[in-house]
Amino acid sequence: MLSGAVPIAEIWRGPLAESEHAGHVVVAGPDGGTIAALGAPGTVVLPRSSAKMIQALPLVMSGAADEAALTDRHLALACASHEGAPLHVGAVADWLSGLGLSEADLRCGTQPSRDKELKLEMIRRGEAPSQLHNNCSGKHAGFLTLNRRLGGGSEYQEPDHPVQKAALDAFEEATGASSPGFGIDGCSAPNFAASMEGMARAMSVFATAHTRDDTFSRAAARLVQAMISHPVEVAGEGRACTLLMQAAQEPAALKFGAEGFFVAILPERGLGIAVKVADGATRAAESAIAAVLVGLGVLDERHPDVQRFMAPEIVNRRGLVTGEIRPAPALAQLGAKSARA
Amino acid sequence: MLSGAVPIAEIWRGPLAESEHAGHVVVAGPDGGTIAALGAPGTVVLPRSSAKMIQALPLVMSGAADEAALTDRHLALACASHEGAPLHVGAVADWLSGLGLSEADLRCGTQPSRDKELKLEMIRRGEAPSQLHNNCSGKHAGFLTLNRRLGGGSEYQEPDHPVQKAALDAFEEATGASSPGFGIDGCSAPNFAASMEGMARAMSVFATAHTRDDTFSRAAARLVQAMISHPVEVAGEGRACTLLMQAAQEPAALKFGAEGFFVAILPERGLGIAVKVADGATRAAESAIAAVLVGLGVLDERHPDVQRFMAPEIVNRRGLVTGEIRPAPALAQLGAKSARA
Repeated sequence: MLSGAVPIAEIWRGPLAESEHAGHVVVAGPDGGTIAALGAPGTVVLPRSSAKMIQALPLVMSGAADEAALTDRHLALACASHEGAPLHVGAVADWLSGLGLSEADLRCGTQPSRDKELKLEMIRRGEAPSQLHNNCSGKHAGFLTLNRRLGGGSEYQEPDHPVQKAALDAFEEATGASSPGFGIDGCSAPNFAASMEGMARAMSVFATAHTRDDTFSRAAARLVQAMISHPVEVAGEGRACTLLMQAAQEPAALKFGAEGFFVAILPERGLGIAVKVADGATRAAESAIAAVLVGLGVLDERHPDVQRFMAPEIVNRRGLVTGEIRPAPALAQLGAKSARA
Repeated sequence: MLSGAVPIAEIWRGPLAESEHAGHVVVAGPDGGTIAALGAPGTVVLPRSSAKMIQALPLVMSGAADEAALTDRHLALACASHEGAPLHVGAVADWLSGLGLSEADLRCGTQPSRDKELKLEMIRRGEAPSQLHNNCSGKHAGFLTLNRRLGGGSEYQEPDHPVQKAALDAFEEATGASSPGFGIDGCSAPNFAASMEGMARAMSVFATAHTRDDTFSRAAARLVQAMISHPVEVAGEGRACTLLMQAAQEPAALKFGAEGFFVAILPERGLGIAVKVADGATRAAESAIAAVLVGLGVLDERHPDVQRFMAPEIVNRRGLVTGEIRPAPALAQLGAKSARA
């Protein structure tokens, strides 16, 4: 994973660079081919939650989404790593209820809410987190919706289940390659591997989907629209995906993934971007995607929410600024090069 | 920081290496010279909390510790990054009270307790964390004790304060070099920089201190003994420092530092070890120090607490094992080489 990786962010404390992150970045053009890259574009990666819009494709393509009368808000939740705030939890609960299902049908496992207020309130009330609070509960509600159509068994998260076979087909179609394998994700669903170029290609397939009229492309375009229309559903207030989508000067669908992943879909340019931090650090992935998008002109570096993720100050326990994150200049240069391509 | 760093740990998920960490490791022999290293031994680093036993030297050397009738338990807390469990918080409160001081005299800032039970209890009671819960409160109680002797002003954390000047003197004496600068730490005290070789040398100075009889060495030997005698005070139940010290087959003082630092002091061998993960990841620092100590024969890799940090399983939200951390074989080889040196 470090092989061929290049420096992408430095962590400074006072006059000293204390830590440093390396990674891989690929930008794919409208035809899916790589137009700019840092690091080793052939590196095989697990995109984790950055693949959620791909995993949601069969839900729409199969007609299951329409059959269940899902709105764009539901589809945004299907693509989300949400923070388990009341708005996310309530929407997924209603969705399951509309299917005649309940929390017990989910297979994502429990996770405490990351919504600060709700989390504290639940501790005060002595209330245990449920599977609805899991950041993947929308994705799993999507799996259950698809499963109703496919008629598979209850263990829809198993790799050989029709739901996951459909997800793999969509993944290989989007990335344009056979997946070399999978890992089991935090939510127990398989997470399929691709090359960095494959993931960037997949994002450009989504970015250009609105220009095509086949079933696959219509589904992809609808999911992009859902994410862009519902940035709070995709993550939550204060989260990088949400704030950077809201700060963007043109439509952009952004999606974080665990272990240092981040992707961007830019429909007006037909570009797809994939970022992987070799060591898995979230702080570097957020900084890197923001820096590339600044270079592209999609984000304005003077916007406070852009600064907050691209080059945040590090503040200590007494509120003193003790350091900062500095994205590598190569990232903005990569963005600028991609804008000219 | 990445320049010259070598791979030290891989994060596996299913059949795929998902992330990877690089870093620097130096082992210093009884004379302070480097006997084995991985990465770039000259790299300038901020040792963060791995320097706490150095920062505590003036407390003992000055006679302030004896004047305040501090026990080894107090000295272990002065070297600690404790988790703010009741035993730590209570001991520091009593210590301050004995000095005629209180929590308000600390300058470390507040931090929520990392003791799971106490943290939840405080949330339920609506109780705000205090500076006593800060992982550095013992270090700061030590600073206040020294300050009573030195007669400095109340802002003992400022870099030009006599307390911090004494800490710098001790740091340069231990590392054997002028410090090239400092950053402000999470607790607002200056954290002095050294080379990796300098930090390993400092740890070997501590490891051999019991063989010398000067004021500096007597203080260093006493601090090592305090840490080894009170592993729970140094961190807390379930923490790497505590469990690995308890698992060690010979006396060993171990100390974690933020941003991927870890040091070891081995008094029976006169060896000092410094580990820095270039990207700052705790998981890799814990894995690396454990692997080096296994190679040295200080830890037994079959011990469950050694496995837990050296090569832990990664478990998902449903309790399934989805992956593992694999330390680079070079770490145990470095340890084995050091054992033969």
